[in-house]
Amino acid sequence: MADAEIIAVGSELLTPDRIDTNSLWLTAQLNELGVEVRRKVVVGDDRELLAAAVCQSLSEVSIVILSGGLGPTEDDITREAVSQALGRPLVFRQDLLDALTGRFERLQRKMADNNRRQTFVIEGAEPLPNGRGTAAGQWFESNGKVVMLLPGPPHELQAMFTGECMPRLRRKLPPQVIRTRFYRVAGMGESDLDQLISPVYKPYANPTTTILAGAGDIQIHLRAHAETEPEANALLDAVGPPIEKLLGDRIYSRNGASLEEVVGEQLRARRATLSVAESCSGGLLGGRITSVRGSSDYFAGGFLVYTDRMKTELLGVTPELLAEHTAVSEECARAMAEGARLRTGSTFAVSVTGEAGPESQTGAPVGTVIIGYAAPGVEPQAKRYLLFGDRNGVRARAAQWALDELRRKLL
Amino acid sequence: MADAEIIAVGSELLTPDRIDTNSLWLTAQLNELGVEVRRKVVVGDDRELLAAAVCQSLSEVSIVILSGGLGPTEDDITREAVSQALGRPLVFRQDLLDALTGRFERLQRKMADNNRRQTFVIEGAEPLPNGRGTAAGQWFESNGKVVMLLPGPPHELQAMFTGECMPRLRRKLPPQVIRTRFYRVAGMGESDLDQLISPVYKPYANPTTTILAGAGDIQIHLRAHAETEPEANALLDAVGPPIEKLLGDRIYSRNGASLEEVVGEQLRARRATLSVAESCSGGLLGGRITSVRGSSDYFAGGFLVYTDRMKTELLGVTPELLAEHTAVSEECARAMAEGARLRTGSTFAVSVTGEAGPESQTGAPVGTVIIGYAAPGVEPQAKRYLLFGDRNGVRARAAQWALDELRRKLL
Repeated sequence: MADAEIIAVGSELLTPDRIDTNSLWLTAQLNELGVEVRRKVVVGDDRELLAAAVCQSLSEVSIVILSGGLGPTEDDITREAVSQALGRPLVFRQDLLDALTGRFERLQRKMADNNRRQTFVIEGAEPLPNGRGTAAGQWFESNGKVVMLLPGPPHELQAMFTGECMPRLRRKLPPQVIRTRFYRVAGMGESDLDQLISPVYKPYANPTTTILAGAGDIQIHLRAHAETEPEANALLDAVGPPIEKLLGDRIYSRNGASLEEVVGEQLRARRATLSVAESCSGGLLGGRITSVRGSSDYFAGGFLVYTDRMKTELLGVTPELLAEHTAVSEECARAMAEGARLRTGSTFAVSVTGEAGPESQTGAPVGTVIIGYAAPGVEPQAKRYLLFGDRNGVRARAAQWALDELRRKLL
Repeated sequence: MADAEIIAVGSELLTPDRIDTNSLWLTAQLNELGVEVRRKVVVGDDRELLAAAVCQSLSEVSIVILSGGLGPTEDDITREAVSQALGRPLVFRQDLLDALTGRFERLQRKMADNNRRQTFVIEGAEPLPNGRGTAAGQWFESNGKVVMLLPGPPHELQAMFTGECMPRLRRKLPPQVIRTRFYRVAGMGESDLDQLISPVYKPYANPTTTILAGAGDIQIHLRAHAETEPEANALLDAVGPPIEKLLGDRIYSRNGASLEEVVGEQLRARRATLSVAESCSGGLLGGRITSVRGSSDYFAGGFLVYTDRMKTELLGVTPELLAEHTAVSEECARAMAEGARLRTGSTFAVSVTGEAGPESQTGAPVGTVIIGYAAPGVEPQAKRYLLFGDRNGVRARAAQWALDELRRKLL
């Protein structure tokens, strides 16, 4: 089994405020290939120290991955440090300069002089194109050892590793079968879920079961290692189906699709449209729905109605209703959903109102969130929840619960 | 100046799911004492590898802090590894055994045999009492170097470091202060900014200057070390004010406040209200504005108008305007802002329309974003930008640019 070390570069990662998270994502990818991470290092923008770290890693493992320090500025020293560690000079690449110049021309910007630093590659290394930024990566391979230089911004690093490094590593590494199953679950707390399913997975060391949770979105990963695919699948079958049975329609995705993508597909399949009316979530629900490409096919529009007056003027929630029930009520949530539906002409509408805190405006406990729902031919509905978290935790969960509520209605 | 390295021990910290956060807290404490962290390392439960890491750190810095691996089980190898690295045996301590036995008696539990592992200390080291767990820490000092062994659970580590290590370090270290300045900048690319200000900060090693960038938000950190506060401030004055002069009103915050907080304060100071009309950003702008507590004081409401029809029905953008200029036009952005302002009765309104991609709907290049602005007594205005990034990068920058546009109008 090949081992890897990950070196994150950047003085900001040695301050109290910033942490290297790229290594977590990289570790997950490496594990997929059967590669274990043996050590992780964070070094600042210090060429000598970084060169020493690279030398040490190369003496210990066969795969060394560096993230960060490939930018255009003087304190981006990864290229120079690795060049020094490998004892190979940096060479200018006209093709990289052409690509960079083209990129700036397309964006109608002037390229800064210091961007030329990004056109140098370690002698013998292959440049890795970066579709999302100016920093090309590098792949260097010699004597069975691999060194990868990747950009620091996570979306650049991830695209480059997936597109360029994974295929190269797969060709290089002995075949090993890892099969996974993956479930995404909404509308449950992490401990409730674990209490429910742990009797199923606990007896098994293979597959491994990992549960990750954040703001009301839970991911369950099963990973089985075996010599052949049928063996790996048999291992997964001992754990996966019983978990699916226990969770039922709480599972919203088995392929990694996000909740907003799942809901989008449901709407598209019905040729239906959706509108939203958001109070405490203030745009987060609309933001998630429209993060999906092609969402203009089904997203009609929405209303951010943060004040009582706006609920009345934009959505027709009557002042009498608000006076009698307050804005944090099932009555208001229903009227908001119905108002959004009528005013946009959408097939469905979802509304969110609640107390995100830190103080309660209506007397309802902070964390109270009410999700309203309007659809053709039925009375508007509403459901009350008490959600965990600080202000932004409650807001994020409110958007999550609203999407999941809609998903279950559309099943 | 004293430097430190932090070594986190534990194989779980080399999985995709767990991250060492103790080092962030420790870094903040060390910085208070004028100590910089030079390198951070994570190693698994591997005695040889850990011993090698300790040897290397001792050759580089004068303070080495280890966290984790002090538990009672066989895979807790920090004591043995450091003993090996220092070439000093572990010695049994009756006082530690008495303390441990007493602890278990008070909790009316039986002490497991392997807890005896926790009663051994490196020869010459001082045990550090742990009021919150069974793992004693250790303080070893020799030839001006210090090695600390601390438990992994954050509440144990923090109590021990604060109560035992900080006082010892204060006695040992020369008095020293670190002072920082901090700027947040919007509306500029990272390379453009660096090219502008690097002639100012480059000549100085103290203060250090760090530039961090993400989705159109740039942070500049200056950190000065000195023996006294006036000296540290004098060092900062050589770099901070010239940078402020070059960047002018591109700097939106000097205290870490976010752009949405700064805009909120501007609106509050004017007793003004704001509404938004979002097309391609789909709620991200409203979501950011309402992430600030108390934003209901100034946020009137908003419209998510994803389709041409909604722009017409909800905001009164005429079909003729859309037919002639398309939705991605200055004309449409102005009409959206004015429509939002009229329909909510807000003092100001900001609109966002554009092409987030992946395909262009109107023929304008992907990345085109137009920000509209409406205010009392002036004609509505609009400004066109071409922004970097994939779909969600363009959307995030669109919200950032809109907030910054508003901030500059309100100056």
